Amino acid sequence: MESTTQLRVRYVETDAMGIVHHASYVAWLELGRTELLRSLGQSYREWEKAGVHLSVGEVHMKYRAPAYFDDLVTVHTKVTEAARRRVGFSYRIEREGVLLAEARTVHMVTGANGKASVLPDEFLRLLVG
Amino acid sequence: MESTTQLRVRYVETDAMGIVHHASYVAWLELGRTELLRSLGQSYREWEKAGVHLSVGEVHMKYRAPAYFDDLVTVHTKVTEAARRRVGFSYRIEREGVLLAEARTVHMVTGANGKASVLPDEFLRLLVG
Amino acid sequence: MESTTQLRVRYVETDAMGIVHHASYVAWLELGRTELLRSLGQSYREWEKAGVHLSVGEVHMKYRAPAYFDDLVTVHTKVTEAARRRVGFSYRIEREGVLLAEARTVHMVTGANGKASVLPDEFLRLLVG
Amino acid sequence: MESTTQLRVRYVETDAMGIVHHASYVAWLELGRTELLRSLGQSYREWEKAGVHLSVGEVHMKYRAPAYFDDLVTVHTKVTEAARRRVGFSYRIEREGVLLAEARTVHMVTGANGKASVLPDEFLRLLVG
Repeated sequence: MESTTQLRVRYVETDAMGIVHHASYVAWLELGRTELLRSLGQSYREWEKAGVHLSVGEVHMKYRAPAYFDDLVTVHTKVTEAARRRVGFSYRIEREGVLLAEARTVHMVTGANGKASVLPDEFLRLLVG
Repeated sequence: MESTTQLRVRYVETDAMGIVHHASYVAWLELGRTELLRSLGQSYREWEKAGVHLSVGEVHMKYRAPAYFDDLVTVHTKVTEAARRRVGFSYRIEREGVLLAEARTVHMVTGANGKASVLPDEFLRLLVG
Repeated sequence: MESTTQLRVRYVETDAMGIVHHASYVAWLELGRTELLRSLGQSYREWEKAGVHLSVGEVHMKYRAPAYFDDLVTVHTKVTEAARRRVGFSYRIEREGVLLAEARTVHMVTGANGKASVLPDEFLRLLVG
Repeated sequence: MESTTQLRVRYVETDAMGIVHHASYVAWLELGRTELLRSLGQSYREWEKAGVHLSVGEVHMKYRAPAYFDDLVTVHTKVTEAARRRVGFSYRIEREGVLLAEARTVHMVTGANGKASVLPDEFLRLLVG
């Protein structure tokens, strides 16, 4: 399962080096996940209302080239792992075919209280796709 | 009632102009309020646990001089208005006596559900000071 | 001169009250300005490369209703004032016709060095529209 | 070489799960590095003025326990690798002895123009310590 989303770099995402600050990319991964779920007909907002949270357990990012204000950036997001308690994603962040960053994240399934929980079967099936 | 708090400018708070991004100052006002309450022996975290929120209704900021990465910045915060349903603060943000920005904010007292509420008398008395 | 742009609320823009943090709206104003310029056939990135910066001098925001994660938000941006040294904008932030916030900002025209400068006539004419 | 710095969690750093957003920790790593350099008598601001940048090449973070608004958090930062072109750090983020996150970052030495450069010998010696 893979999905693609685009975003326009905001000025607030840049830093004094004149490029996008490395922490801004972490929020872009989140966009990638939300849009991947949307492409499956799902709303992460609804998941949360149903008490299903994908808490971030790990973030691994390699930065390959700088991004700049007003760049049109593409985030490619893939499910790499989907189990009842744990879900993983990988990402490629690009600008017109140029690789800007590669990342992967690991998530624990938790309830609204932050305690470990399990992914409902219907959601699991969608992710395994 | 006035209080003073210091902060060190973070790299992530800067932007591609090489200065602190104007939205970063808004978070500094929040620091100013939290530390003003602390100087009154109060914890805004505890207020929230007790169901008392100061929801931001208005922000007015005038920027006077740029701030830079690693600057040591002082936020002076004052209560300008304290009523059961509405609280106001004013701020001066400085670096070694140089005025960087002036601001004021207005807050509505709300409950955990975001609905209008009233400030408990004990909190009101503290703010009126 | 007015323009309209849409954005999807990001999780990172929310706070522990479960709503969008008030500082996030400030970055949305910036989006509004960038897209207003784009609707005039201009690129603020190119303005900056040409040494023309609209430094933020004032921000005034009134919050009317909370925004939530994944909301589709519309920013209406208008030029309210355009002179050689100073430009002003006003904004309405809405979600499906519900007013979330109203704002206005004032900007000083500066060079790359942050010093006061003047808006080239061609840019001024565009803004005056 | 190891250093320790403390920070107070800001409201703006939290998200709708009621905890600190995972991207906020990335900025805390940056604080850790800046303060490690300061503990060596160095100013990263001065390094940048001298044309020496530590561009972020990799971030790896494992989240162990949530952090909350107003928590007093400690960042322990260590140099794990220091060469002329590449520097590495590891981090432990804690709250009163509770491990919140572990991380490591890898940095490329670059000039003001973003091009690969080398660390001056005096800086290298300090980091190797």
